[in-house]
Amino acid sequence: MPRNTQIVLDNRPQGAATEGNFRLIATDTPPLTDGQVLVRHHYLSLDPYMRGRMNEGKSYAACQPLGEVMIGGTVGEVVESRHPRFAAGDKVVGMGGWQEYSVVDGNAPGLLRKVEGGPVPLSYYLGAVGMPGVTAWYGLTQIIAPKAGETVTVSAATGAVGSAFAALAKARGCRVVGVAGGPQKCRYATEELGFDACIDHRLHTDVKSMSRALKDACPDGIDGHFENVGGTILDAVLLRANAFARVALCGMIAGYDGAPLPLQNPALMLINRMRVEGFIVSEHMQLWPQALQELAALVVAGTLHPRESIAQGLASAPAAFIGLLHGKNMGKQLVKLI
Amino acid sequence: MPRNTQIVLDNRPQGAATEGNFRLIATDTPPLTDGQVLVRHHYLSLDPYMRGRMNEGKSYAACQPLGEVMIGGTVGEVVESRHPRFAAGDKVVGMGGWQEYSVVDGNAPGLLRKVEGGPVPLSYYLGAVGMPGVTAWYGLTQIIAPKAGETVTVSAATGAVGSAFAALAKARGCRVVGVAGGPQKCRYATEELGFDACIDHRLHTDVKSMSRALKDACPDGIDGHFENVGGTILDAVLLRANAFARVALCGMIAGYDGAPLPLQNPALMLINRMRVEGFIVSEHMQLWPQALQELAALVVAGTLHPRESIAQGLASAPAAFIGLLHGKNMGKQLVKLI
Repeated sequence: MPRNTQIVLDNRPQGAATEGNFRLIATDTPPLTDGQVLVRHHYLSLDPYMRGRMNEGKSYAACQPLGEVMIGGTVGEVVESRHPRFAAGDKVVGMGGWQEYSVVDGNAPGLLRKVEGGPVPLSYYLGAVGMPGVTAWYGLTQIIAPKAGETVTVSAATGAVGSAFAALAKARGCRVVGVAGGPQKCRYATEELGFDACIDHRLHTDVKSMSRALKDACPDGIDGHFENVGGTILDAVLLRANAFARVALCGMIAGYDGAPLPLQNPALMLINRMRVEGFIVSEHMQLWPQALQELAALVVAGTLHPRESIAQGLASAPAAFIGLLHGKNMGKQLVKLI
Repeated sequence: MPRNTQIVLDNRPQGAATEGNFRLIATDTPPLTDGQVLVRHHYLSLDPYMRGRMNEGKSYAACQPLGEVMIGGTVGEVVESRHPRFAAGDKVVGMGGWQEYSVVDGNAPGLLRKVEGGPVPLSYYLGAVGMPGVTAWYGLTQIIAPKAGETVTVSAATGAVGSAFAALAKARGCRVVGVAGGPQKCRYATEELGFDACIDHRLHTDVKSMSRALKDACPDGIDGHFENVGGTILDAVLLRANAFARVALCGMIAGYDGAPLPLQNPALMLINRMRVEGFIVSEHMQLWPQALQELAALVVAGTLHPRESIAQGLASAPAAFIGLLHGKNMGKQLVKLI
């Protein structure tokens, strides 16, 4: 069996997460028992939700235990199988974690999914045609449920979720406005991702300024918002929301480090008769096939073709992850493991 | 035509509303033209939403214009009619405002509604079997939509909305926990209104303390919350909410005077995958008949029989209204005009 390299959570962040919270270890992969599959990971996905799990206490999922391999989505290839449904050479998506190999129970429902090669690049199954894409799809179609002509907004617009959100919303005839950090990302949003406008949040660091920028970019107000960030952006969106606007709460990354970020004027949810709904996409597995089908079709059609930021080698994962939390990546953040 | 007495909004509150914001004037009632009805008001309803309309700027309804009769629900008797559907002696509910008489266009849909005398006291059409009752019904059935056995909570528990909420939720097999101000109101809630428990918010003025009190009163967590107040209570409810909890936002009275009250940790809406929805009951008129029918049945059955606080004479309305905002009333606040 091959030697494995793994990254475990060594200690919990005090405030901002640092590379020192993680530890790289070398282990042996255990021999397979009946029903198990050995997967060699080609790519590891880095996603903002991982930051929430590094904290102790109540989050929407069990927190990441210390000393265990960090949770994470992976795509790779079966190298050995003692399960009849998997064979060496199969391309598979799973939650293999921050490591080069994983041993997976082939019988556990949803743990390992075979994917096609072909027109969709393998790495896309961790982004546009994977969990982030389905996340955008769920928030847009199940919570915001926009009509053609409505205006929808999304924060972290150029990330894996935001880029899928733009393609899905444009396909429904919406005006789509993004919020991202820096002129380069904003240009990428409008020139490559299909956004009608993109607001650089670095130029609008307080609620008043962000609210004015939203007013300019959304002359008919905001009918739906997909929140990946929280803080100033959400406060400003509430000021520009139309009656009966819907907000899909997917991430509050702005408050993951340190103290919770308050919402300045929650009465606006009442004044605007809004619906604000939090969700976690893994609780809606029955909708994934439908979502993945639409996302794959958009990729094949060429209307969803986001960039990727690829770090090389498992040891680069902690730094790449911290960079992601600070918005240093452009597009989906991956770690290439082969 | 009879002389009329009216109360107009004289000036807008700077911070807390005061009696000095209102002005009492005497006028003549104009002669009726075709299609009009003259109504003598027996009772005027005082409700927290009126405070929001006294402010300038964006609220869920047009703000109350200066120098005009204050908006308000009324119940009374037709004294003269030039409309075929109304006759002298008819008992009617309407939005007659803070005045003794009103002249109403009998053709305007929804402005004037005939009600039965009989087992439902006339004044109840402003409370349990009126707008506040329907408000409770809408939030409970259309937003919270509880299953039997779930725990639901409500702030301003002994008010007109809270008391109807308790009866409606008990009828659906829920555990119902109220929050009210003072031991007298809490006793009234559990002994007369059917609440399973009631928390005195005067004993729990910070979020931590309120959260502990909610934990004691809701050992299985909170599945649904009806918010009339906002502030500390809502912050604490979010800390005790179960996964997929629903919050009906009906009032944020805690923030009506002065600066907006922030929500301390909005990320809990995501962590708990909650749905928070603001509403205004007058935008859902198609559901009123169904709601009023259930509410009237509960009154007739004796399971909904809230107390009323009755101020005598129109001139007492401003003081009674300020008292309502400070929680001085016990049960539905009315002004008796005859």
